[in-house]
Amino acid sequence: MPHEQITLYTSKLCPYAQRTEIALAEAGAPFKRYEIDLGNKPEWYAPKVNPASKVPAIAYGGPDVPPENASPESTKLAESLILDEFIGDLYPSSGIVPADPVLRAKARFFIEIVSIKLNPNSTKFLHGNPEGTHAALLAGVDAIQDLLPEGVKYAVNDQYTIADIAFAPFWARLNLLVQKGIGSYKDEERKKFLKGLEDPKYAKFNGYVQRLLARESFKSTFDEDVVAEAFIGRFGLPN
Amino acid sequence: MPHEQITLYTSKLCPYAQRTEIALAEAGAPFKRYEIDLGNKPEWYAPKVNPASKVPAIAYGGPDVPPENASPESTKLAESLILDEFIGDLYPSSGIVPADPVLRAKARFFIEIVSIKLNPNSTKFLHGNPEGTHAALLAGVDAIQDLLPEGVKYAVNDQYTIADIAFAPFWARLNLLVQKGIGSYKDEERKKFLKGLEDPKYAKFNGYVQRLLARESFKSTFDEDVVAEAFIGRFGLPN
Ligand SMILES: N[C@@H](CCC(=O)N[C@@H](CS)C(=O)NCC(=O)O)C(=O)O
Ligand SMILES: N[C@@H](CCC(=O)N[C@@H](CS)C(=O)NCC(=O)O)C(=O)O
Repeated sequence: MPHEQITLYTSKLCPYAQRTEIALAEAGAPFKRYEIDLGNKPEWYAPKVNPASKVPAIAYGGPDVPPENASPESTKLAESLILDEFIGDLYPSSGIVPADPVLRAKARFFIEIVSIKLNPNSTKFLHGNPEGTHAALLAGVDAIQDLLPEGVKYAVNDQYTIADIAFAPFWARLNLLVQKGIGSYKDEERKKFLKGLEDPKYAKFNGYVQRLLARESFKSTFDEDVVAEAFIGRFGLPN
Repeated sequence: MPHEQITLYTSKLCPYAQRTEIALAEAGAPFKRYEIDLGNKPEWYAPKVNPASKVPAIAYGGPDVPPENASPESTKLAESLILDEFIGDLYPSSGIVPADPVLRAKARFFIEIVSIKLNPNSTKFLHGNPEGTHAALLAGVDAIQDLLPEGVKYAVNDQYTIADIAFAPFWARLNLLVQKGIGSYKDEERKKFLKGLEDPKYAKFNGYVQRLLARESFKSTFDEDVVAEAFIGRFGLPN
């Protein structure tokens, strides 16, 4: 089926937006990329593209116009998880939305666990919230590892899916910041987390995240320097 | 395609569980229904069916066994929204998961708005939380009405979908409790909410929710008396 034009409004900093960039890369979908400066969002963005004023958002279809001038005739879509599924639905051959209903359900459940058991603990940890201990963060890792099937490459099987896409940008940021010591946590907590992760019991998880970060669609959409610099701007230089 | 057995663990009280019951009714899917007493959950439920110990959950496939004795060979699935999509994927002819990717994305976005803009305000309102004002609740109604297309029957078009299924059980409970005066809100807030909803500007919304509550799959899965009684148990008799 012929595809309509896709314009993606995104930001290199944003893990949600990276999800959508990975999905587009996996699909091999042609699209126009428009970087939104989150510190200084253009005033046309909310009224013309996304009333919630967040990235990512897609303008789909309609005439071929400059991104600054999104046409009322294109369909505006938002929410990273919805966009990932949308791209997978447009490009079924990408395989990112599994064809089998059971595997689909498992991919979505994996995403739910990332969203409720890992990401909130990761945010608390980075911000030095008292509840954001290394132990809470490792409990999130446990919850994810428990879902990983034995002997496969990715979250649901050997196929790379929306589950992996949803998780990778968040893990990558946490990993980068903890490696570099950027964040409001105590250095002791950081060391305990890194030490904890080295435990052989996390071999399955560690193998998995290594594959996530080595995936071409991930690497081509992650600019480590830009992300690190932005977080240094937020948290200050590592001590 | 021949379908494998479905066992649904559910509760008449639970709006999440009702979502899954509606989806099964729309699909015309045969299933075994097992009522979980939420006040006294069987001890086999978490270990054998859903580690999160919540309803709804489905055991899919495997041998034909009594629900109390779920087989390790069946696939256990949880999370109401995931189950609705799963049922729609198993029974595409139900139409509850729209075939068109854009409509699918819109259905999912509608669900997201219900989850972030209406349900939390509804919970706060019912519990008499100071932020749970009639105005906050009406703002949630506005957010939903804004998404409803003109001149169609349901959330995305004339087809009844996962979007409608996700919303109906929550609206039904709010409506029931507010009509009957069950809840911890001040009576003045209740009256203001009901009065506010009568405003002609909510005609589109009111027409929509009327259709939701009149749908056969909704009615056959909603036991008003049981729900009202349970909430009286929680909030006390209306004054
Ligand atoms: N639930 C949204 C979250 C998107 C989000 O929060 N994006 C942030 C950047 S990471 C944003 O655009 N925030 C608006 C702002 O910073 O003004 C999604 O999954 O797409
Ligand atoms: N996110 C879950 C929520 C399900 C849920 O919270 N169910 C409640 C009843 S309405 C439950 O089973 N709670 C466990 C308990 O009461 O112990 C879903 O969408 O299925």
